Amino acid sequence: MDFSSFLTSLATSFAIFVVLMFLFAWLSRKPANSVVYYPNRILKGLDPYENGSRARNPFAWIREALSSSEEDVVAISGVDTAVYFVFLTTVFGILVLAGLVLLPVLLPVAATGKIEVEKNSTSKGAFTQLDSLSMGHVKETSSRLWAFLIATYWVSFVAYFSLWKAYKHVSDLRAAALMSPDVRPEQFTILVRDIPPPRGGQTRKEQVDTYFKEIYPESFYRSMVVTENKKVNEIWVELEGYKKKLARAEAVYAESKNVGKPEGTRPTNKIGFLGLTGKQVDTIEYLYEKINELTPKLEAEQKVTLREKQQASALVFFSSRVTAASAAQSLHARMVGTWTVMDAPEARQLIWTNLPKSFYGRRIRQCVVYVIVFLTIFFYMIPIGFISAFTTLDNLKKLLPFLKPVIDQNVIKTVLEAYLPQIALIVFLAMLPKFLLFLSKAEGIPSKSHAIRATSGKYFYFSVLNVFIGVTLGGTLFSTFKDIEKNPNSIVPLLASSLPANATFFLTYVALQFFVGYGLELSQIVPLIIYHLKRRYLCKTEAELKEAWAPGDLGYETRIPGDMLILTIVLCYSVIAPVIVPFGVIYFGLGWLVLRNQALKVYVPSYESYGRMWPHIHTRILAALILYQVTMFGYFGVKKFHFTPVLIPLPILSFIFAFICRNRFYRFFQCTALEVACRELKEAPNMELVFRSFIPPCLSAEKSNDDNFEDALSNVSRSGSFA
Amino acid sequence: MDFSSFLTSLATSFAIFVVLMFLFAWLSRKPANSVVYYPNRILKGLDPYENGSRARNPFAWIREALSSSEEDVVAISGVDTAVYFVFLTTVFGILVLAGLVLLPVLLPVAATGKIEVEKNSTSKGAFTQLDSLSMGHVKETSSRLWAFLIATYWVSFVAYFSLWKAYKHVSDLRAAALMSPDVRPEQFTILVRDIPPPRGGQTRKEQVDTYFKEIYPESFYRSMVVTENKKVNEIWVELEGYKKKLARAEAVYAESKNVGKPEGTRPTNKIGFLGLTGKQVDTIEYLYEKINELTPKLEAEQKVTLREKQQASALVFFSSRVTAASAAQSLHARMVGTWTVMDAPEARQLIWTNLPKSFYGRRIRQCVVYVIVFLTIFFYMIPIGFISAFTTLDNLKKLLPFLKPVIDQNVIKTVLEAYLPQIALIVFLAMLPKFLLFLSKAEGIPSKSHAIRATSGKYFYFSVLNVFIGVTLGGTLFSTFKDIEKNPNSIVPLLASSLPANATFFLTYVALQFFVGYGLELSQIVPLIIYHLKRRYLCKTEAELKEAWAPGDLGYETRIPGDMLILTIVLCYSVIAPVIVPFGVIYFGLGWLVLRNQALKVYVPSYESYGRMWPHIHTRILAALILYQVTMFGYFGVKKFHFTPVLIPLPILSFIFAFICRNRFYRFFQCTALEVACRELKEAPNMELVFRSFIPPCLSAEKSNDDNFEDALSNVSRSGSFA
Repeated sequence: MDFSSFLTSLATSFAIFVVLMFLFAWLSRKPANSVVYYPNRILKGLDPYENGSRARNPFAWIREALSSSEEDVVAISGVDTAVYFVFLTTVFGILVLAGLVLLPVLLPVAATGKIEVEKNSTSKGAFTQLDSLSMGHVKETSSRLWAFLIATYWVSFVAYFSLWKAYKHVSDLRAAALMSPDVRPEQFTILVRDIPPPRGGQTRKEQVDTYFKEIYPESFYRSMVVTENKKVNEIWVELEGYKKKLARAEAVYAESKNVGKPEGTRPTNKIGFLGLTGKQVDTIEYLYEKINELTPKLEAEQKVTLREKQQASALVFFSSRVTAASAAQSLHARMVGTWTVMDAPEARQLIWTNLPKSFYGRRIRQCVVYVIVFLTIFFYMIPIGFISAFTTLDNLKKLLPFLKPVIDQNVIKTVLEAYLPQIALIVFLAMLPKFLLFLSKAEGIPSKSHAIRATSGKYFYFSVLNVFIGVTLGGTLFSTFKDIEKNPNSIVPLLASSLPANATFFLTYVALQFFVGYGLELSQIVPLIIYHLKRRYLCKTEAELKEAWAPGDLGYETRIPGDMLILTIVLCYSVIAPVIVPFGVIYFGLGWLVLRNQALKVYVPSYESYGRMWPHIHTRILAALILYQVTMFGYFGVKKFHFTPVLIPLPILSFIFAFICRNRFYRFFQCTALEVACRELKEAPNMELVFRSFIPPCLSAEKSNDDNFEDALSNVSRSGSFA
Repeated sequence: MDFSSFLTSLATSFAIFVVLMFLFAWLSRKPANSVVYYPNRILKGLDPYENGSRARNPFAWIREALSSSEEDVVAISGVDTAVYFVFLTTVFGILVLAGLVLLPVLLPVAATGKIEVEKNSTSKGAFTQLDSLSMGHVKETSSRLWAFLIATYWVSFVAYFSLWKAYKHVSDLRAAALMSPDVRPEQFTILVRDIPPPRGGQTRKEQVDTYFKEIYPESFYRSMVVTENKKVNEIWVELEGYKKKLARAEAVYAESKNVGKPEGTRPTNKIGFLGLTGKQVDTIEYLYEKINELTPKLEAEQKVTLREKQQASALVFFSSRVTAASAAQSLHARMVGTWTVMDAPEARQLIWTNLPKSFYGRRIRQCVVYVIVFLTIFFYMIPIGFISAFTTLDNLKKLLPFLKPVIDQNVIKTVLEAYLPQIALIVFLAMLPKFLLFLSKAEGIPSKSHAIRATSGKYFYFSVLNVFIGVTLGGTLFSTFKDIEKNPNSIVPLLASSLPANATFFLTYVALQFFVGYGLELSQIVPLIIYHLKRRYLCKTEAELKEAWAPGDLGYETRIPGDMLILTIVLCYSVIAPVIVPFGVIYFGLGWLVLRNQALKVYVPSYESYGRMWPHIHTRILAALILYQVTMFGYFGVKKFHFTPVLIPLPILSFIFAFICRNRFYRFFQCTALEVACRELKEAPNMELVFRSFIPPCLSAEKSNDDNFEDALSNVSRSGSFA
């Protein structure tokens, strides 16, 4: 790709962004769209337009985003979102601090460096204006490389400093949230797994109750044994489906009264396969019948489930926050792997089916999943290799000749040339996260937030390995495969030497990500269209309408690895081609702005993990940093710089830094520190409410009938059937 | 060393053992010696001779040892001793099970194997009778090697099985001890370190009390801030010295009344340098004067210490055992490295000076100590090399020509030839443990038992590296140093190929250890002589006499590494030269017998760590096993056996086994499981006694005056000076 196509791509991206931004300003002012642009505020019961006057200014959202404080974010969107902004701010800070030194120092050094490198080297084409600003332009063994070497150190130290500060800050955020005087049910609850088989005719419930009552005679409140809910859940889902259909049929019937005959048309349907065959029945009557049939069945199944399907896992409730925090981190049984305890996650993010999975089962599942992920990461290489080989314009013309007239047009050609490989890549990557989330859940992880963290990690390593390293080595790898086989250490210099050739590819990639990606994010074009289509043609009831505009969460499982990939790319190129740094700064700065708006107004977090994402983010930033340091070491080697070994301490330093941070901060992210949990509460907790908040919907009876829960959801204070 | 000298050494060792055993039977029957042979029973207030009639039988001790149960050992000598016997039993079991298969199978296979190996190979001399029973006798690439390969697997699986059973058993022992209904002060206490600087004019005591009172409003009893006791301790030691001298002087005076003039001779001494110069004074008067002078000084210093020398560490007392157990393992502060908590060790094993050492200080000390140990391990190689080069008879004759007439006598020559190198080695090794203990204490470890575990670990790795690998490679290493430099992987085959040549050396070493070592151990000749000399010439008072026979503890810091070295040697040779297995069986069987006697009657444990030694023993047995597996892999390689890679899974299996054991059992050895701590107590603990048991002797006032302790040893219930 030459310089002009790079500029074209940049300009196009920017144009798209500007268009999308004005579209957003125009669309978001219309009240009919407010449920798409302000769902979070609406669901929180706030006025969507804070200041009606401001909303007319197309840049008002920027002012609002900038003026919002961290407390606002925590209050409206939770600690996890605030932590995500700490991540954006930290990376932004690292890149700004790096850029402030790298750009004014390295660019002149590189530009005035006399180039004598062989023309037929790694570079794909002639040197362009961009290349003359990169380290590739400096002569081998030149003493000018000292400047680049010192810059490598500078970037690392800036990163350490910022990361340390950020970890401290996130730790404070987490502490503040955990010591809040509000009663949060999960802070009074612990999750117990791997309960050994009960002895002497005890039921699970009795076993759990006696066990914990003996250890915590004063603060043990009650326990809830996890049950096998598959069957009851099926019935419940079926019943809920009928209820929804009934509401819909009634809405259709009511509407028909307004439209046509005053007595209306009663909706009918066929009860056979897919509603296409079988007897024609009156829908409303049919549904009433079904509901009346299922309701007693559900109640009976609930009773059976609670009584007979108790599993080897339980939630235990304590009347004191400190005791719960302390119980969640203490060893209860002398054998690890029985009576395993942990902080209970929020009720809404519990993955119920994973709770009774056994200790060894989880370990084995984890191993199997890791092997699958490993295979996925390494065998996706092959399809990616094919794709990047095919998605050149020449190949396209050959394979799909009917596209030729379109492609040959000059403007389209330039645009396509600029974007095609990147778009292929992005589309390709979109397929993966669901699969990885499925795998993470299969590990036996008990909470959704944890599964998402695990997915995010897998996706990050996938991205870095396949996109960054894969694309960089690209064709080179296959041609030099034999060399690598002979000497696996050669992969670092090989990677390093192919870096400069791909600098413009990644510059374009970053630019595309931020302008088009954030433009689409801000304007919410796709959800808007879907919402309006659904509203017009599908939704009949209020509930269906609400479902149509219900906003998602920020989707950390793909968002964070995406950002991480950009960070990895920018870091690795920061010294080699410092012009990439401003792109990184724009990516994270613009991201901060756009997402601040989205977090405050659009997305509704689907769980709260009190910042547990941070240690994972931190580790991965460090992984990126180490990759950068190793790459730089390789690249200095390629430049035949005699003082390259001066870089050896850097990765070691990074490991030590990672070790210290882990030692110092990580445990507080695994469990709650007691000095935090012991803060006073606003009011004594209503333990009945705490307990009820954990009852899964399929088991919660319509009428608040306590007797139903006596079996698996025991109440010690009343049932005296066991000692 | 040839076969006859081996037999001589064996016979001599056995003769020495028999002599020592009869000496023991004879000496231990004399009442005057009972304090040397039964000190543990005497100190426990038991009758030294359980059954007077039995004591006449010289083998009675064997019957007594065999009939004693594990409960007896726990009751008389504590859990740590019982765990040591579990170790002996386990190793004994492994070797017996291994021997039952290896001896009948491998010996015939080896003996009938046709030998065609070059004569000038690794073997030092001609093949002897012993060598024909070893794997070295089997032809290269012979399919007979399959038997040895399967044997290698058999030994490993026997080890896994026994170790798993033993870990479970030790875990039960620990649990039984921890859930005992007796009140043990350390179970109500936690040790807090790294307390941050107090804020707002608080004293340390106030800071600690407010902090823990907030978290544990109900069960917090009191705290004791650690103070800087150096000066007060000096005064106390001086005072105690004078008191002892006074008692002695009075005894001397009283004795003189009996011997000479009825009015006696008042002892006098000079007060100048070493009692040789200066004024002559009446000793008793002088000492009274000194004591009267020092007593108020001590009291003043005690007050100053308690008030002004409070350090960043404290002991915190709880009125409930469960709370203490839970508090000792919970994260208190959100930053790890402040308010670090752990189980309090017993008062008697606290290393007070290490308690206030800072978090980072400890980490850095640890690193420094590890480096020093590493250097020690590797640079002791050089002196050991010199010693083993010099201690041949020929060298000795050359260097010390005046010994020639002695050495040339045939009997002496044979004996010396058999023992000289081994004795040099043993003497050499005796110098090290003190140094390693000093280093371990310098790490900042808070308890004596932990320091001894650390020492034992260091000493084990030292022994294995220097004695086993060092001696084995011996001269070979230096001559082939260049090969190793070129290819460090060659060290395994090198080690493997030099193993058979040293088999007889190690056979002799093991035999010497068990016959002579255990003979000396049982007969207690050295302590007996020292005791009688002291009693006759030095001891004047009862206290001095008691001090003269005061028994030591089992000395795990050297005993366990010593046993481990034997185990490593026996394991590594078990398949190569199966004749070593019976020697190992005798070593551990005899050791069990002799030490059972010693543990029940002689040694008094100086601390109780509730079996915390076990995980360390377990890890080191596995380390020995892995060394054995790697060596076998190397040796099969030397034998050019085509199926050698079949052995590759073994070390991997060992690592997995180690990982699983660590995961499953280790946490209970780090802290107390709550289900264990919640067992009921015989009586409500007397918290005042619990508290007092932790006051260091130099701070405990003569009169039980509580006011002295109000400063660093606060009593919350009474002092209302802080909220």
